[in-house]
Amino acid sequence: MEQRVSLITLGVSDVPRARAFYERLGWRGQEVQETVFYQVGGLGLVLWQQDKLAEDAGLDEVCSGGFRGVSLAHNVRSRDDVDAVVAAAGAAGATVTRSPADTFYGGYAGHFADPDGHAWEVAYNPGFPLGDDESLTIPELGRQG
Amino acid sequence: MEQRVSLITLGVSDVPRARAFYERLGWRGQEVQETVFYQVGGLGLVLWQQDKLAEDAGLDEVCSGGFRGVSLAHNVRSRDDVDAVVAAAGAAGATVTRSPADTFYGGYAGHFADPDGHAWEVAYNPGFPLGDDESLTIPELGRQG
Repeated sequence: MEQRVSLITLGVSDVPRARAFYERLGWRGQEVQETVFYQVGGLGLVLWQQDKLAEDAGLDEVCSGGFRGVSLAHNVRSRDDVDAVVAAAGAAGATVTRSPADTFYGGYAGHFADPDGHAWEVAYNPGFPLGDDESLTIPELGRQG
Repeated sequence: MEQRVSLITLGVSDVPRARAFYERLGWRGQEVQETVFYQVGGLGLVLWQQDKLAEDAGLDEVCSGGFRGVSLAHNVRSRDDVDAVVAAAGAAGATVTRSPADTFYGGYAGHFADPDGHAWEVAYNPGFPLGDDESLTIPELGRQG
């Protein structure tokens, strides 16, 4: 199995509501058959009805609330950008679960949950460089662990 | 908020077990402070203890089982590749939740759950082209929906 991800699909309870949230944040997608596709760098982020997604995955019991155990990070180039994106998410209808603050790894980050509880971190991490195309490269992290 | 994802973090109950699974599939990562980082195209996929991830996200109640409501897709170039990757995942310790079969969108896909229940789809989708660098580009999907 090659080391890559082609799509991230977020199960949502109300596709129009979820789409409206991301579009208020400035995202632009395409919708086909009640499925919304966003190009996010070299992969796609998809919004789809959660019960259909569960059935498609062959997993019919859906966890009933709380943290889903998956977090997506959106890294930016400055502390000010963290503040701005978290504020924009809150204004768009997200729940800000942690206000921006210094992090244990020497960066600065805030956290929000989208209307379906999907967790996002907005981070400035000076140790993880962003390329000209905004891609993230994991640096050589040393021999710890 | 720009339209991109920098990291996908999967909460796991046992980091060495989770790492061993992905490494049996051929992935190679770096581990620092009980956190494993994999470069996956232009972003990172991270394995981290789920309770730490929840706390970091400001969401302290963890959903207690069942489908997490998030699925990652790994798209490949042929039906044979779908069969091979799903078989490899099963051999590495995944639960194959749906055996490879034709899909409603004219492709071919199988599904597995990793040892922590994170859902993966392995898909051949002739409508979603993969680039030379294996990135996925969402095509023009028309005006449906």
